[in-house]
Amino acid sequence: MPAPPPILTADAMMAALKDRPAVLDKLGPDTAQWTITEVSDGNMNAVFRVQQGAQSVIAKHAPPFIRVIGKSWPFPQERIHHEHAALNHHQRLCPDYVPQIIDFNADQALLVTEDFRTLTIARRAFINGQSLPNFADQLSDYLARSLFFTSDFALPTTEKKALIGEFIGNAELCATTEAVIFNGPYWPAPLNRHTHGLEAQVARIRQDEEWHLATAALNEVFRTKTEALIHGDLHTGSIMVDAETTKIIDGEWAFHGPMGFDLGAVIGNLLIAYASQAGHAEQPGSAPLDRAAYAAWLLTVIEALWTQFCQKFRAFAHEKRDQRDDALLTPKLFDRAAVDRYLDQFFAGLLKDTAGFAGAKMTRRIIGISHVEDFEDISDETRRARCETHALAIARQLVVNRDDIETITDLTAAAKRLV
Amino acid sequence: MPAPPPILTADAMMAALKDRPAVLDKLGPDTAQWTITEVSDGNMNAVFRVQQGAQSVIAKHAPPFIRVIGKSWPFPQERIHHEHAALNHHQRLCPDYVPQIIDFNADQALLVTEDFRTLTIARRAFINGQSLPNFADQLSDYLARSLFFTSDFALPTTEKKALIGEFIGNAELCATTEAVIFNGPYWPAPLNRHTHGLEAQVARIRQDEEWHLATAALNEVFRTKTEALIHGDLHTGSIMVDAETTKIIDGEWAFHGPMGFDLGAVIGNLLIAYASQAGHAEQPGSAPLDRAAYAAWLLTVIEALWTQFCQKFRAFAHEKRDQRDDALLTPKLFDRAAVDRYLDQFFAGLLKDTAGFAGAKMTRRIIGISHVEDFEDISDETRRARCETHALAIARQLVVNRDDIETITDLTAAAKRLV
Repeated sequence: MPAPPPILTADAMMAALKDRPAVLDKLGPDTAQWTITEVSDGNMNAVFRVQQGAQSVIAKHAPPFIRVIGKSWPFPQERIHHEHAALNHHQRLCPDYVPQIIDFNADQALLVTEDFRTLTIARRAFINGQSLPNFADQLSDYLARSLFFTSDFALPTTEKKALIGEFIGNAELCATTEAVIFNGPYWPAPLNRHTHGLEAQVARIRQDEEWHLATAALNEVFRTKTEALIHGDLHTGSIMVDAETTKIIDGEWAFHGPMGFDLGAVIGNLLIAYASQAGHAEQPGSAPLDRAAYAAWLLTVIEALWTQFCQKFRAFAHEKRDQRDDALLTPKLFDRAAVDRYLDQFFAGLLKDTAGFAGAKMTRRIIGISHVEDFEDISDETRRARCETHALAIARQLVVNRDDIETITDLTAAAKRLV
Repeated sequence: MPAPPPILTADAMMAALKDRPAVLDKLGPDTAQWTITEVSDGNMNAVFRVQQGAQSVIAKHAPPFIRVIGKSWPFPQERIHHEHAALNHHQRLCPDYVPQIIDFNADQALLVTEDFRTLTIARRAFINGQSLPNFADQLSDYLARSLFFTSDFALPTTEKKALIGEFIGNAELCATTEAVIFNGPYWPAPLNRHTHGLEAQVARIRQDEEWHLATAALNEVFRTKTEALIHGDLHTGSIMVDAETTKIIDGEWAFHGPMGFDLGAVIGNLLIAYASQAGHAEQPGSAPLDRAAYAAWLLTVIEALWTQFCQKFRAFAHEKRDQRDDALLTPKLFDRAAVDRYLDQFFAGLLKDTAGFAGAKMTRRIIGISHVEDFEDISDETRRARCETHALAIARQLVVNRDDIETITDLTAAAKRLV
């Protein structure tokens, strides 16, 4: 049986949805009343909002290639199975922070979920200088739940290995992550680009063996450390927010990997938001705002995120960890104080991974293939280059000297120092 | 269809083999001329030697339980599929060091392989004080080949993840390893035993929080670090030797895990051999031998094994590593000197893992469920307890202070110092 054709247009999506009972149930049976808008934001998939009155859904189709590039860059459709599988786990573990699944059609690589249409992409909120008082609390809760309960702290080995196996087929996406984050930015890979004015820096980075070696060691951690079911692409474009709410979307990169990669993705993108504030200050049309104060607030978000993540993870370790005799931290051997000592060491290592991945994620957004609006929205190239230079200085520090980072304030202090 | 009955007797094994073409081909068609002997040495499986004239084979059946215990301890028969799969990989990567596969009957969980009947189990050779001039060279070659070529240094991510997936179903054996090595020895687990005279030490070890925490961190490495397809049970009872040859058997514990676990298994068991020499010196019937000199030689074997492993692995990294643009150490970024710098760091970390796992493997053989003949053959309990005390002192050092071990001579020096 030939594969069904990719769903790339509004008409094709309407045709794919109009006989799906769960969608009909949600939007009502009169499909003539449905309106459809393409909202594809990332590069990979075709995404539409389908609306009927107050009701709406998000319908996402994974074509067998990268949408923005086309058939010349094939990309496995199975990614949407993995997104669906991850969403199922997150619905079980942290339902407050992920969309509800409305429908999944495996044959058509089509996932229909709850629409967060009143929310904003977090990256955009940070560009706008929006106040998000619940962000650190809620995101740390999502991270603590999704990472703890899929780790060896919570799961018996057989269940944990089953989880590894469930996502091992997402390998091609892992390979893509590796190529675009850990390798590509450091040599003149096709499609790399950078702001005019960074030429000398880019040339220096391409010769910077310390940086390359430290980044390769992160690549090795990414390839070998099966700590938890991670989101795998948790930048601020995968997080939707308003003043009350935080929601996580786009889990197609999920696999069982290092916890520091999710934490580092968030923190690296918060540091990008931080380093770009000076560039937004004089941007035409930008909100009147004390950008220096907002930048300082972003660093407190990083500190709160890490601190609360550790607190919540620690609470789970005390209350919810695997209690069997052959558990990693069995009560047979580890009382409360011993668990705390173990976690102190664990978090110390995790912070170094987190710092390193944060730096790697920052770098690739400035000199790699895929850039971010935090910088791209700064229309003045000189100003943009200045912000990016700041971010690159932070990034190098986090990657090359990550073993010196012992507390989260070591990390934010580096960001403050390197203006 | 009901599962076929377990093959536990010579008659049952003869019946299972007599219409297998590959076995008939090897031993000749006149099955009446075949002789069969049970040679089950480990605890898990039923193993027989089937012989006809100069020809012989080893036939191994995995019952759905642990053979020496019986149906009360179920154990997955799939382990023999994983042994067969690992053997296939090793036949491809390091054929000089593993038995040839003669036949595999998945339905009957029955693997027939080449018989190394002129060889001795390495553990026995060390008890006997046998000279093995090729041991370090050959075993380091096996380790470098089997580990390098199944690691991220050699494989693109998609192939490496496929290998993880191929062995992820061996999870119950991993869980058993974890229970009997990293947890069970440190609390009064059922079936634990120890030599009379060690009571005070065992009581102390059960209260030694530093030791427990350091061992749990090793457990975490074992659970999370997917570095290479490892043998998974590479003690000296899984190695067969004579003065010329080294062969590796019993790969049923294979999975994609930390390289240091294989290296540590070998080195820990060499240290057991080392610490037990004083006990064999006056043993009735023991070969007349300078046991102190032999013990010193065993330490030189450890040093040679590690040094040669690193040399061979390094040579592969220079000559055979993945050369693509998105490889871990792509030539686009890493020249020969940079690869060397990366490996220096990699080996430094691997040595710490290796030391820790060596210590954990030593400890569990003295105070856990499963003991070894190196000590068990010392009939005088006082002398045996003295040797075991020596081994425990080395083990604690390797586990608790493994971060201080920077060279292989740091490791052997600890063994010499702690008499």
